[in-house]
Amino acid sequence: MPIFSRGYAARAANQPLSLFSFERRDLRDDDIEFDVLYCGVCHSDYHHVTGDWKTNYPCVPGHEIVGIVKNIGSKVTRFAIGDKVAVGCMVDSCRHCQPCLNQLQQYCEEGSTLTYNDTDRIDDRPMFGGYSDNMVVSEAFALRVPANLDLAAAAPLLCAGITTYSPLRHWNVGKGSKVGVVGLGGLGHMAIKFAHAMGAEVTLFTRSPGKEQDALKLGADHVVISTDKQQMSAIANTLDVIIDTVPYSHDLQGYLRTLGIDGHLVLVGLIDKIEPTIHSAPLVLGRRSIAGSLIGGIEETQEMLDFCGQHNIVSDIELIAIQDINQAFERMSRSDVKYRFVIDMSSLKKES
Amino acid sequence: MPIFSRGYAARAANQPLSLFSFERRDLRDDDIEFDVLYCGVCHSDYHHVTGDWKTNYPCVPGHEIVGIVKNIGSKVTRFAIGDKVAVGCMVDSCRHCQPCLNQLQQYCEEGSTLTYNDTDRIDDRPMFGGYSDNMVVSEAFALRVPANLDLAAAAPLLCAGITTYSPLRHWNVGKGSKVGVVGLGGLGHMAIKFAHAMGAEVTLFTRSPGKEQDALKLGADHVVISTDKQQMSAIANTLDVIIDTVPYSHDLQGYLRTLGIDGHLVLVGLIDKIEPTIHSAPLVLGRRSIAGSLIGGIEETQEMLDFCGQHNIVSDIELIAIQDINQAFERMSRSDVKYRFVIDMSSLKKES
Ligand SMILES: NC(=O)c1ccc[n+]([C@@H]2O[C@H](COP(=O)([O-])OP(=O)(O)OC[C@H]3O[C@@H](n4cnc5c(N)ncnc54)[C@H](OP(=O)(O)O)[C@@H]3O)[C@@H](O)[C@H]2O)c1
Ligand SMILES: NC(=O)c1ccc[n+]([C@@H]2O[C@H](COP(=O)([O-])OP(=O)(O)OC[C@H]3O[C@@H](n4cnc5c(N)ncnc54)[C@H](OP(=O)(O)O)[C@@H]3O)[C@@H](O)[C@H]2O)c1
Ligand SMILES: [Zn+2]
Ligand SMILES: [Zn+2]
Ligand SMILES: [Zn+2]
Ligand SMILES: [Zn+2]
Repeated sequence: MPIFSRGYAARAANQPLSLFSFERRDLRDDDIEFDVLYCGVCHSDYHHVTGDWKTNYPCVPGHEIVGIVKNIGSKVTRFAIGDKVAVGCMVDSCRHCQPCLNQLQQYCEEGSTLTYNDTDRIDDRPMFGGYSDNMVVSEAFALRVPANLDLAAAAPLLCAGITTYSPLRHWNVGKGSKVGVVGLGGLGHMAIKFAHAMGAEVTLFTRSPGKEQDALKLGADHVVISTDKQQMSAIANTLDVIIDTVPYSHDLQGYLRTLGIDGHLVLVGLIDKIEPTIHSAPLVLGRRSIAGSLIGGIEETQEMLDFCGQHNIVSDIELIAIQDINQAFERMSRSDVKYRFVIDMSSLKKES
Repeated sequence: MPIFSRGYAARAANQPLSLFSFERRDLRDDDIEFDVLYCGVCHSDYHHVTGDWKTNYPCVPGHEIVGIVKNIGSKVTRFAIGDKVAVGCMVDSCRHCQPCLNQLQQYCEEGSTLTYNDTDRIDDRPMFGGYSDNMVVSEAFALRVPANLDLAAAAPLLCAGITTYSPLRHWNVGKGSKVGVVGLGGLGHMAIKFAHAMGAEVTLFTRSPGKEQDALKLGADHVVISTDKQQMSAIANTLDVIIDTVPYSHDLQGYLRTLGIDGHLVLVGLIDKIEPTIHSAPLVLGRRSIAGSLIGGIEETQEMLDFCGQHNIVSDIELIAIQDINQAFERMSRSDVKYRFVIDMSSLKKES
């Protein structure tokens, strides 16, 4: 028997989200069903709502999801009714290609199944995200939240967290590393917290004067206003790794110049043309690189959550009701959020 | 007493090279003076002669130099009169910055001293390259050529060799690696030989049908005509490392698609704008990177020469007289060289 669900959906590009009723699939043997308690609001949700990214409507966004297990399939072993559970950007993958076997499901050769704006790989049913009252997911893609973390503030770890944790680990950030973070939003504030916790010296690049104090509190050692040429030159040739979270095309040349020999500029925000284009000189003359990174694998996501448990790391959030989602998107588009909106899904109960 | 020299110089951009007399510096304590026997003709020489790259004229090019030691300074310990000696793209560096201490003199923070189109860091004298009858160089930047290698064919190792060897090592190419090489010229043919000798499966990308047989003989396992979309799609998502030797702006998008997860596209040929610009999707969605690499350090250059001695690797060359240099540049500009011109400097003696 399919599971009745309600959520908030965009019905077309650039239309306000509104109440939407739909069905989740019947529980399979390895599925868990859970009540969604909180769901973070990622800028990727906004790219789907605006139609920046190719989207099938109606679209229920949301891939920073925490909740409580309500029901389990007959072969579920890792979760019991009443457990805390979390889901991020992926809910399935082919499970047999080399990247999947290497716990890099995000790079599955057959394409991972995304939490929303995708179709289930078994029954082709459209997937709907976490701006809703419940979820059904294979336990293989369900995560455990450490007991000491606030559940609402932990929700953004499932995307903003892992997307910044994974490249910091992959490019070997540790004690003494010099890390740059571009953009102080949802991803950026997590990148600062993680790089700081890993022992790095952290520099935030921001367009927005006024975020300096917050950045220092979050763990940055330095703040550079990226539009200030003098501040940019002052740190030329110094950084090992930059995590660039800016969501739209922007000039990378200035950031490349802040990298030392063998430095890496890692794009996590931009999925678009690199415009203006870059000159290859900083790459060739300093063995620098421009790379990209996509969320993280399931095992690494659990590792990140456990790291957060040990270091008491969660997101800085503004809790909202689902009825405020359209205003939240508008504020996010102006970078007016400190530093992640999280939807309290109990607000959905008000709607009749 | 300065040392009298003769060579071939460009007097202005796009002018034919012709005979030029000049002086080398007096021997310093750690200097060796040597007679140039052979000098390779690198496409970088051509970039200077055409004025593609910022150049001070008169310019005597040449940075793939082998010769015989004629005289040594009072504190020279590693070379004796009569020894074979080789010099590449650099003749000095600050010797105390972190890259220099790490044997990465090519990335010296104060700028290494190039073999030509540069000035000496002690006396500010202009540097002239190896298209000449003799050289003076600090023994710290002089290399040893293994006894079993043909001297003329070993000359290109000093630039084309180290420039391709170094990134293959840096990006951990070894048995089982899948390596792409873009462009079959001086650098490209050395990249094939090295990657093959390191145990990799090698794919050559070329614009030029007709080079297939040569490529296979040089050690390539596959040849892909880069303008053939079908051939390009057939190897999508497979390569670990690509060494791109193309000297001018060209579309990188097709090559990025041939990289597997975590693959690296390493630019060694292009020092210009990346045009057309690239899309970040292949980077973000596969953790791929675009990087660059510059020649190699002095210690690594010696390691490369020793590797060549062990594996009997030299360049495939066309030996020319210095009087043929202008025609050689013209042929090189049409990729009509198999696969490196080397100047027999004894031809200079003919000129009175
Ligand atoms: N690679 C992945 O796996 C992955 C995963 C999740 C999200 N993403 C992408 O990452 C990007 C960032 O997501 P987010 O949730 O952190 O977004 P966000 O909270 O809106 O933060 C983005 C930050 O970028 C800076 N920025 C610079 N130019 C901007 C512009 N023109 N418009 C808006 N912001 C600009 C702003 O910081 P300052 O004011 O400090 O300059 C802003 O706070 C989005 O594109 C999202 O789709 C990628
Ligand atoms: N990074 C460094 O440290 C370093 C060191 C030395 C040289 N370089 C640079 O590396 C580049 C290659 O040097 P090289 O001596 O190997 O040059 P080369 O012998 O002329 O070979 C270049 C090859 O690139 C291919 N190509 C593709 N498009 C081309 C075009 N529009 N014009 C000419 N060739 C084109 C050709 O191969 P196909 O016919 O097979 O397509 C050609 O044989 C030059 O730009 C040089 O300055 C860099
Ligand atoms: Zn997200
Ligand atoms: Zn897979
Ligand atoms: Zn060269
Ligand atoms: Zn130095």
